[in-house]
Amino acid sequence: MKIILVYDVNEKRVSKVLKFLRKFLVWVQNSVFEGQLTYSELERLKVSLKKLINEKEDSVVIFSFSESIDLKKQIIGIDKSEDERTI
Amino acid sequence: MKIILVYDVNEKRVSKVLKFLRKFLVWVQNSVFEGQLTYSELERLKVSLKKLINEKEDSVVIFSFSESIDLKKQIIGIDKSEDERTI
Repeated sequence: MKIILVYDVNEKRVSKVLKFLRKFLVWVQNSVFEGQLTYSELERLKVSLKKLINEKEDSVVIFSFSESIDLKKQIIGIDKSEDERTI
Repeated sequence: MKIILVYDVNEKRVSKVLKFLRKFLVWVQNSVFEGQLTYSELERLKVSLKKLINEKEDSVVIFSFSESIDLKKQIIGIDKSEDERTI
């Protein structure tokens, strides 16, 4: 699956979430990650992420779709993403 | 087309960008919009957005894909999106 993950997390927890997500996905820009995960990898990510955030305060949105689809990515301004190996 | 738009824009320009994007898309959370646009609507959005941001400082990433695809959206924690009429 292709994944686009966005998060809106309290300052106190951002660095832990950032460090964790970097193990699975590629940083796109502030609060945004993308990448490819298997179903079980995504499930593991969600379980661990729930332990890092406060579900009453923070918000994580995960968009997922099949690898086969034609996903277009357009950038206006600076490309802040870290890695060419993205979607 | 389905659209996921994320932006990382200088504080000075954020409110103008936010106000503008609300005319086209639905706010998901901080710096993230989603929705459906025709090809020409997206082109118009991009032209206007370029006038609002500073392309040397700011970054806007637009993920677009066909409406027909099965896009899954999962939320961990709070659902901050404003509107049920999303993807």
